[in-house]
Amino acid sequence: MAATWHDIAARKQRERADRIPKKWRLPNERFQDNDSVLDVPRRCGLLSKQDIRITESYDASTLVAELAAGRLSSLDVVTAFCKRAAIAQQVVNCLTEIFFEDAIARAKHCDQYLREKGKPIGPLHGLPISIKDSFKVKGYDASVGVAGFCFKPAAANSALVDLLLEAGAVLYCKTNVPLTMMALDSHNNVFGRTLNATNMKLTAGGSSGGEGALIAMRGSPLGIGTDVGGSIRIPAMCNGLVGVKPSHGRLPYVGQEGGAPPGSSKLGIESTAGPIARNAKDCEMLLRVIGDSQPYMYDPDVLPQTWAQQTSLQTSLPSSRVQQPLLVGIARTDGHVAPLPPIQRLLDDVSRCLRSPTLPSWEAIRVVDVDISSFGPQILKVFNGIMSIDGANTWFNHTASTGEPMSPWLQTRLKRRPAKPLDEVRSLQSQRTELQTRFQAIWHERGGYWQTPADKTTAGGRMLDVIICPAAPHPVPPIDRWNTTNYTSAFNLLDYPAGVLPVRTFDSADLEGSVPNEAPLNGWDTINRGLWNDVDRRLYVGSPLSVQIVAPRLMERKLVEIMVMLEQALSPLKTLRASASKL
Amino acid sequence: MAATWHDIAARKQRERADRIPKKWRLPNERFQDNDSVLDVPRRCGLLSKQDIRITESYDASTLVAELAAGRLSSLDVVTAFCKRAAIAQQVVNCLTEIFFEDAIARAKHCDQYLREKGKPIGPLHGLPISIKDSFKVKGYDASVGVAGFCFKPAAANSALVDLLLEAGAVLYCKTNVPLTMMALDSHNNVFGRTLNATNMKLTAGGSSGGEGALIAMRGSPLGIGTDVGGSIRIPAMCNGLVGVKPSHGRLPYVGQEGGAPPGSSKLGIESTAGPIARNAKDCEMLLRVIGDSQPYMYDPDVLPQTWAQQTSLQTSLPSSRVQQPLLVGIARTDGHVAPLPPIQRLLDDVSRCLRSPTLPSWEAIRVVDVDISSFGPQILKVFNGIMSIDGANTWFNHTASTGEPMSPWLQTRLKRRPAKPLDEVRSLQSQRTELQTRFQAIWHERGGYWQTPADKTTAGGRMLDVIICPAAPHPVPPIDRWNTTNYTSAFNLLDYPAGVLPVRTFDSADLEGSVPNEAPLNGWDTINRGLWNDVDRRLYVGSPLSVQIVAPRLMERKLVEIMVMLEQALSPLKTLRASASKL
Repeated sequence: MAATWHDIAARKQRERADRIPKKWRLPNERFQDNDSVLDVPRRCGLLSKQDIRITESYDASTLVAELAAGRLSSLDVVTAFCKRAAIAQQVVNCLTEIFFEDAIARAKHCDQYLREKGKPIGPLHGLPISIKDSFKVKGYDASVGVAGFCFKPAAANSALVDLLLEAGAVLYCKTNVPLTMMALDSHNNVFGRTLNATNMKLTAGGSSGGEGALIAMRGSPLGIGTDVGGSIRIPAMCNGLVGVKPSHGRLPYVGQEGGAPPGSSKLGIESTAGPIARNAKDCEMLLRVIGDSQPYMYDPDVLPQTWAQQTSLQTSLPSSRVQQPLLVGIARTDGHVAPLPPIQRLLDDVSRCLRSPTLPSWEAIRVVDVDISSFGPQILKVFNGIMSIDGANTWFNHTASTGEPMSPWLQTRLKRRPAKPLDEVRSLQSQRTELQTRFQAIWHERGGYWQTPADKTTAGGRMLDVIICPAAPHPVPPIDRWNTTNYTSAFNLLDYPAGVLPVRTFDSADLEGSVPNEAPLNGWDTINRGLWNDVDRRLYVGSPLSVQIVAPRLMERKLVEIMVMLEQALSPLKTLRASASKL
Repeated sequence: MAATWHDIAARKQRERADRIPKKWRLPNERFQDNDSVLDVPRRCGLLSKQDIRITESYDASTLVAELAAGRLSSLDVVTAFCKRAAIAQQVVNCLTEIFFEDAIARAKHCDQYLREKGKPIGPLHGLPISIKDSFKVKGYDASVGVAGFCFKPAAANSALVDLLLEAGAVLYCKTNVPLTMMALDSHNNVFGRTLNATNMKLTAGGSSGGEGALIAMRGSPLGIGTDVGGSIRIPAMCNGLVGVKPSHGRLPYVGQEGGAPPGSSKLGIESTAGPIARNAKDCEMLLRVIGDSQPYMYDPDVLPQTWAQQTSLQTSLPSSRVQQPLLVGIARTDGHVAPLPPIQRLLDDVSRCLRSPTLPSWEAIRVVDVDISSFGPQILKVFNGIMSIDGANTWFNHTASTGEPMSPWLQTRLKRRPAKPLDEVRSLQSQRTELQTRFQAIWHERGGYWQTPADKTTAGGRMLDVIICPAAPHPVPPIDRWNTTNYTSAFNLLDYPAGVLPVRTFDSADLEGSVPNEAPLNGWDTINRGLWNDVDRRLYVGSPLSVQIVAPRLMERKLVEIMVMLEQALSPLKTLRASASKL
């Protein structure tokens, strides 16, 4: 008799637990009652002073510098992160596959290589990197939380895994995802639910939710997620991290377990791989390293462009860039779901902070308002249409083989439907191209980003460099209550690079404000208002508030360079909420 | 009663004839009996000495230089090419839409602009450029030879037309195509058949056949075609010209009449626009101008890369390029249809010429043999599968509306079939990705391009820069007898940039040689042998023999730079066939 999903999940969870060395196990297994468990690694007693220093005093960029110079050994760094990842797993349930032993052996090899050859293996020499479960690592499952996919180890690495290893990285664990990878809360029947380390009543996001939770716990200095509708950006937002979703064709993606039949992405929307990290500089570092590693030789869809060949802040507008300030558009709403008061306040803060002549950033940044609200509803329609081409039948078939049920949130949303006929798929793709064509005008002055005569003077005929907009119309919501991905998935449909940048935390002043008196725009808007009116808002206090930064297609380099600038420019808001809002 | 295709075609042909000024009409309309009509423009008496000098003594690159400097007026240049295009039309039937009056008015505007402003409008200032009928020019039909599409003038320009006009070009005519644009001989019921100016018994090729014939007659200095399976490269080969098919995403393409329902290209293979010209330098010039005109603002599928940001001969392999020779692979056969003896001889000549230490090119070029024959049959299968997704129903519907029959060649090949189900389309796209992934190894030494120990030493661990292969397994064939596009369409499936370079003409020594004694590989191979055994081979003498040059995906800049080098390196073969074969 075939194994049931129950048996498989139990066996899989035992395997995972057994891969954590006994000496790294926490005395008490769960911390359900604590609102924040971010301090557990520090106070649980399992980490040495050195482990704490390594995992807390460096970011990924400084770690690679120290590792390459031999000032930190890979063995020490990898061991520290393995230990902290083990702790994180026991607290927020963020891991799927664990290969600490392989990692420590490889770390020793890295150290030996550096000693013997006097040079690093590559630009990621000795650095531990965590990856989403959908990436294949030879010899380990890429089950993506599906019982029927368990105990079927990958025969080969995903393309990006090969590239990272050739660049010298050390892989040590894979991270949790939701069943189908199309939910926004990382729950599946095999590995269970990943929790938010900041506040266990809030969602950790998805689908790269394990990455988000692990990095929030400082169990990884740098993670790789994937994003077809927000799956990098949403967990980045939920966990107060920086996440970047590139355009299709920038990072290698092939050889990944997506659950869909081969070729599906060519008819739909291409998912892309990208970094999640503690700051924008680390995301920039990863994109630079990949850009300079001939990524197009790993995946035929990747463009042959070195980092130097990619459009940068300096080269993007050769004639007008010189000595000109950055031109940043701020878009307040997608026109489909109105952002709740704290999100509106956040955008106000960002706008004021960037416009303020008292801030040092003023010299380099000009801000204009941009109205993209006419696009939102149609973008959502086309995105949802393309994402449901196969009528969810593939996923129902995957789960049916072991009798596995859908996750609770999916049960109310997913049902079998007939696959769409070819004509409808063709029409959806045509509507996508039309939206992409029309949206291009937004970047130009003639696209209507001039809202006022003053802006007109400010802009002076320039193209926008980036657009800042919400990452969601609500703060980090309670578990299983994420509402609409349109703020993120819009930029998958348009294929623009987009990143999430944490700005500040939700504070008690954010509890004020009410939704407008007018009728809601639609059902989604009604549900969204519920996240303000029907919950105890105090839940949100202390959770991260983030914005999304968007650049034109394939301008990843420029995007992350600008994110580094904006991270700095917006840093006063992190600590000085009250004074910033008085600007 | 709705008009029949007969009436529409007659009216359309009258319109076209009326758009040629009376003073530019030839006394006798057709030159059917002449083998070559290339000299008709010179000897017909309609061209002034200045017209002949302008159309014969310059290429497109030198014309733009002279125009920008004001040493030639746009009025003189445009008038000369309009006259010569009018003559070409009357001899080889290569035009569809004619707008000489608009062109001459615009030429006057260009001249005035230069006089008044002291600078050119743009990098193509005043240059006449001819375009394939599928491009839309506001106010004129883009009927692509379909009766049902006639007398429905375009409401807006295609994206590339806008770009060319903003760069200062002067558009003066559109050129003929085959019905459906999927035949290799440019015949349709509205405009008739385009003829080969070198030899009227041979095909002028297709689908950009009107471009090929017009430029061969020197009725255009530079033309723009499109290519989804060979439609730029095949007419370039048939007319002894240089043609370059870029990868998808390099040149703007949107807003074109392809006959297919919107969105089709996203499910199939994307057609791309590219130049046809008399030499490689002119193709390079066009790609450079477009690269530097922010082409991505005209079409959302185009990559944001300036010419400087594109991979060049100098930047392609930063570490190994310096002072290293070009590494050129030669692929003799696609493994599906064996090239006939003259094509084998041509490749031998090219290989010997590039390897010869007595030639000045030896310093800069190394040659290795490459075996790609294992790919050919599968590439053909997947290409044909993807190209027949809609079962030809769209085209049958287009023609049915006016009772129009298919062209003779298409009648024997095209029939209505059911559209493919979504699952099959998905599977074909997946097979395409797999072929793209596997073929990448060919560029590396480990892909097996080392054929001999000597080659191994020569290559020294390098990546191939380009592959040289046949453009077809036969010489320019008689009308309607083109056999298999697999030599060209393979690089549409793989999405590699590929160009055709004329090497020499078919001479009497090429009449020798016979096909092998072994049984043919398949039906296509049998038909191909018929082009050697069942025709009077003397027909081929004097026709152009060309090779195809292929670069990795999106390396258009490197491709055309190498084509310029190879054009020079192979130039001894043009005149010294006999001595070259003794090398």
